[in-house]
Amino acid sequence: MSSEANGRHPTGNPGESPRREVQPDLVRREEVRGRHPGDRVVRIPRHPLFRQVAPGTLLPRRRAVEPQGGWGRLTWRAKRFLIGEPISTDREVFERLTKLKALAVLSSDALSSVAYSVEATMRILIAAGVGALTLTLPLTLVIVLLLVIVATSYQQTIRAYPSGGGSYIVAHENLGVMPGLAAGGALLVGYVLTAAVSIAAGVDALISAFPELESADLALAAGAIFLMTLMNMRGVRESGTIFAAPTYVFLVSIFGMLGLGLWRVHAGGGIDYVPVDAPRFPAQEPLAWFLILSAFSKGCSAMTGTEAISNAVPAFRPPESRNARITLMVMAGLLGTMVIGIAYLTSQIGILPDPDEHVTVLSELTRLVVGDGWYFYLVQFATALILFLAANTSYTGFPWLLNVMARDRYVPHWFGLRGDRLAFSFGIVTLSLFSIALIVAFSGRTESLLSLYAIGVFAAFTLSQSGMTVHWLRGREKGWRRSIAVNGLGAVSTGLATVVIGITKFGEGAWLVIMVVPALMGIFILVHRHYAAVSRQMEEYVSPVSSAERPLALVTVAAANPVTREALRFAKAIGAEVIAVHVATDAPDAGRIKQRWAEVGEEVPLVTIESPYRLLIPPLVAYVSALREMAPDRPLLVVLPELVPRHWWEQLLHNQTALRLKAALLFQKGVMVVNMPYHLVGQAKKGA
Amino acid sequence: MSSEANGRHPTGNPGESPRREVQPDLVRREEVRGRHPGDRVVRIPRHPLFRQVAPGTLLPRRRAVEPQGGWGRLTWRAKRFLIGEPISTDREVFERLTKLKALAVLSSDALSSVAYSVEATMRILIAAGVGALTLTLPLTLVIVLLLVIVATSYQQTIRAYPSGGGSYIVAHENLGVMPGLAAGGALLVGYVLTAAVSIAAGVDALISAFPELESADLALAAGAIFLMTLMNMRGVRESGTIFAAPTYVFLVSIFGMLGLGLWRVHAGGGIDYVPVDAPRFPAQEPLAWFLILSAFSKGCSAMTGTEAISNAVPAFRPPESRNARITLMVMAGLLGTMVIGIAYLTSQIGILPDPDEHVTVLSELTRLVVGDGWYFYLVQFATALILFLAANTSYTGFPWLLNVMARDRYVPHWFGLRGDRLAFSFGIVTLSLFSIALIVAFSGRTESLLSLYAIGVFAAFTLSQSGMTVHWLRGREKGWRRSIAVNGLGAVSTGLATVVIGITKFGEGAWLVIMVVPALMGIFILVHRHYAAVSRQMEEYVSPVSSAERPLALVTVAAANPVTREALRFAKAIGAEVIAVHVATDAPDAGRIKQRWAEVGEEVPLVTIESPYRLLIPPLVAYVSALREMAPDRPLLVVLPELVPRHWWEQLLHNQTALRLKAALLFQKGVMVVNMPYHLVGQAKKGA
Repeated sequence: MSSEANGRHPTGNPGESPRREVQPDLVRREEVRGRHPGDRVVRIPRHPLFRQVAPGTLLPRRRAVEPQGGWGRLTWRAKRFLIGEPISTDREVFERLTKLKALAVLSSDALSSVAYSVEATMRILIAAGVGALTLTLPLTLVIVLLLVIVATSYQQTIRAYPSGGGSYIVAHENLGVMPGLAAGGALLVGYVLTAAVSIAAGVDALISAFPELESADLALAAGAIFLMTLMNMRGVRESGTIFAAPTYVFLVSIFGMLGLGLWRVHAGGGIDYVPVDAPRFPAQEPLAWFLILSAFSKGCSAMTGTEAISNAVPAFRPPESRNARITLMVMAGLLGTMVIGIAYLTSQIGILPDPDEHVTVLSELTRLVVGDGWYFYLVQFATALILFLAANTSYTGFPWLLNVMARDRYVPHWFGLRGDRLAFSFGIVTLSLFSIALIVAFSGRTESLLSLYAIGVFAAFTLSQSGMTVHWLRGREKGWRRSIAVNGLGAVSTGLATVVIGITKFGEGAWLVIMVVPALMGIFILVHRHYAAVSRQMEEYVSPVSSAERPLALVTVAAANPVTREALRFAKAIGAEVIAVHVATDAPDAGRIKQRWAEVGEEVPLVTIESPYRLLIPPLVAYVSALREMAPDRPLLVVLPELVPRHWWEQLLHNQTALRLKAALLFQKGVMVVNMPYHLVGQAKKGA
Repeated sequence: MSSEANGRHPTGNPGESPRREVQPDLVRREEVRGRHPGDRVVRIPRHPLFRQVAPGTLLPRRRAVEPQGGWGRLTWRAKRFLIGEPISTDREVFERLTKLKALAVLSSDALSSVAYSVEATMRILIAAGVGALTLTLPLTLVIVLLLVIVATSYQQTIRAYPSGGGSYIVAHENLGVMPGLAAGGALLVGYVLTAAVSIAAGVDALISAFPELESADLALAAGAIFLMTLMNMRGVRESGTIFAAPTYVFLVSIFGMLGLGLWRVHAGGGIDYVPVDAPRFPAQEPLAWFLILSAFSKGCSAMTGTEAISNAVPAFRPPESRNARITLMVMAGLLGTMVIGIAYLTSQIGILPDPDEHVTVLSELTRLVVGDGWYFYLVQFATALILFLAANTSYTGFPWLLNVMARDRYVPHWFGLRGDRLAFSFGIVTLSLFSIALIVAFSGRTESLLSLYAIGVFAAFTLSQSGMTVHWLRGREKGWRRSIAVNGLGAVSTGLATVVIGITKFGEGAWLVIMVVPALMGIFILVHRHYAAVSRQMEEYVSPVSSAERPLALVTVAAANPVTREALRFAKAIGAEVIAVHVATDAPDAGRIKQRWAEVGEEVPLVTIESPYRLLIPPLVAYVSALREMAPDRPLLVVLPELVPRHWWEQLLHNQTALRLKAALLFQKGVMVVNMPYHLVGQAKKGA
């Protein structure tokens, strides 16, 4: 191969090496036409591993980047099997979401709340006795109204921020850094909670169909999260494809059930229902405002998905903004209808929530309407599935938000890296870890999580709405008054909701969210400061030494043998001056080295450092810093010969001096460390 | 400081750097008078951290090797507090043992067996009913006879091997490698078992004095081992000082007790004793030979300490050999007397072992002889202590043996390294780990360990005795016939004992030892082969590239900024040719770099490798191997700029590309990797 390359590139540039003429010239310079005048590019001889796509630009062939054997190959195969073949960056646009898929991926959260929001309201009200349940429907209507307001104002947000207008972006841009971070933090918490709650609720739904599964609930949750992770690692489009079906099955089956229910209630001669055991619901407290408000807050959990769409606008097929807006409206419409429907039927029939929480109100309703047949189980399954999918909304929103914040350098930049299926892998994994932690911590009890749920999301709503209001005030584009009216209304109402939730839910754990968010903001700022410092300092970087000067080379000598000789030769080739250093932890060794030095020493002066306490690293480090002090502006290059054994266990037979020394020298300014690996025979195969 | 150094060393040698004249010449060559003609040495300007003790030989001052602050300082302090100030190598001889201390350190194992060997014999015999106990005394006499034989023959071994004549050395030298390794393996196992058994027995003794401690037995054992480890880390002499007292207290108290006992039995009108509950000892089996032999084998455990002295001869004060021999004889005498004494009194009084094993026979005897007063507790304590100290014998023998075997490269060489208190730290720690593991595995039950105990040691005895016989046969020095007689007798008798033990104890776990030893031998040989291969290959080492040639330098570029510029400058200073490589995982980044290249590129050609799947490492590795293929005999130097942050947590904000890339390149032959660390501000303090 190499000779062939030689043949193709006979030219050679002068160098001190005798055998230069027989070497291919690896670097042939030529001006590129136009672009950046004066910049130069390399053309290396053609090599089977690479294709030259432009002057100085190489494209590695597939087998250049795939591990070719052994363990690496195995893991690669496993990964491909689990998440599929890698997708190249330029195919990103084909990975976008159609409206149909988007509704499945991004709205499943909102839609799924159908499964519990009404019940949540009822469970609060019933504390004031069964009679209080008459308030369920009115409260639901209020909530739906709120939903409509929020949806409409997000319409405007999306129009104004076609490249993704999540609360973080809007608040950050219009209200300033801190509100932005607050919104971001609140949303991140919200997403984690959403994922946790949805998984837990999904498991509940399953259990209300198959009570015998109750014992395995945590296992089920963990399994679901693992599945969710894999799916999303495969990329948003693919998970959309997979998750679309159940969403639509859910929609159809619920609407079918509601339709049938309405017919039976009004035309079909009514549905008779014997309240399980009303006596078990004594009125514990009067029907005070506080109770009503907290019932309202619980119900608000129905709305937590609304944010997702406006966050992930760039995930839509073009025209992104328009498609996003349509999807949002459809979602709101469907959600509102279903919630009202359920609330209406429930109160018509007079269903009471199951005190033992074995059976959800929705499944009770379904059972009454459609009986015990296949349809009932269909609804059960669809519900379970969509509740799992609700988690999937977080799996889209959470990584997207982190990606945006990573671009602004508020979170570690690897949250902005796309995995080899174009998914934001780090965000996905992080979300999974947090939600499994939460579920375990709350031992899978949806109720207790729900209380943590809404506050963060509504805070984010408020911030984004107020942000938009400011936006219009500044912009004063055509129709800004109307826009302000809409977003202003949104801001006020969501603001009120936030306050209500904060007060009513404080005791139940909202305080936790209220503590966590500021903590997160603190972290964001620290991270930002760090990155800012790094990039500023990299721009202002002044080397502690004069890099252009050939360094003083220090060769560490463990024994006098040909390996040492090669190291010394190398050091002489690159260093202005060379010093060989041996730390004498063992006198006889030191003697042997001195004796053989004339033979292998390559004329390099040998410094012996005695180590009365048999320490190896500290004396070397001290010597290095001494040299640095005496030649402050000259680079110092430490050459470390390092054995590379055949098998891992052989490493145990050698003390990792090279490694330890490198770690010790890392903090010395102006000191560079070069490894000279020498391979044991057998290594050859592995080697290049 | 550096300017001062400059002042002191005005001379300078010519170099390409403009500011060379203001630099001190770090390397001034001068012929050394005589010694190795033609070799050269360095004299670096005087520096406060070092003292020049000879031309080219520096002695670091204390503060050069002590960590000066932060965590390192803290751990250093803790270590000093626990194991004391470091001891310099040249003080080794002052760390040797006097005869008095040697008896404490090296004989405590043998002496301690007084506490259980007689009882062990009785517990076997009693299986044939109480009557069988009449055999206790005769058996003990046989055992003591064996002891005398072994001691005498070891006398000769020590005389023949003044530099330490453990079974491993003798067998290895006279019988060949495999017997040597067998002896070594057997002894190592023996030492571990000794440590474990002794600690366990010590705990038993404590418990028989304070039964309420019974629950905490494992904790006590662990504590004892930890203490033992610390003590021995402090060095053999110091542990000798600490451990001498209890040994002598034990000797005196036991002899006192025996004397008093003899007087009371024969002159003092006898000691009346009501056997606890003889009925609980029904004759389960006839008094067959097998039973007697296994009783004998148990008793042999009394002898397991004999080896230690001849192993550690170099640990004695000069004249080492003579002192060792005297110590050995004294030890044998004391041991024999005590064992016989105990056996005699026990059978005279007719003491039965406690079926519940709460009270040891020795403590029962003591109680009967001296009553329940302070003396009784004194003996108890002394016994407990000496049993712990018995473990200490292993703590001397085990590391010594490993050290010897490390010199012959049968075990990892770091077993031959002395810690900063001149102790063989690795051996000590290894022993502790194994014995705690054993104790836990056998949940501290001495009995079950005892069965594993003697076989290995006796095998070693046999091997060393036969080795000596061969030694004399070869040498034919004056008196060789007598010597052969002695060692031959020793070989035969210990050989017989080994067989007996092997047969009688096989079922009880001796088989384990018989399995483990060959396994160890296998490991020894593997290790030896590896080291042999390494040193051979280092001698025959031929570099895959022509090291003397200036390398092709490859600079990895993550961004276009001054840091990159410095890296490029450095690369140009040391490399024959320089190529800059950027892996384009993100198109905009790549664009920015191309744009700024003219500014920071230092005229170095830039290769952009597109990475459609956003992989970073594989394309670089592929490119490196491509370059290697095209210039097989030219060294390739990869320059990796690496950020060194202020705080550990900041590391999390950067993906460890440098580290991962280095690991990936380690297996490419002829590729060297140099780190160019650039430090965030604040690092300055930490740095040199």
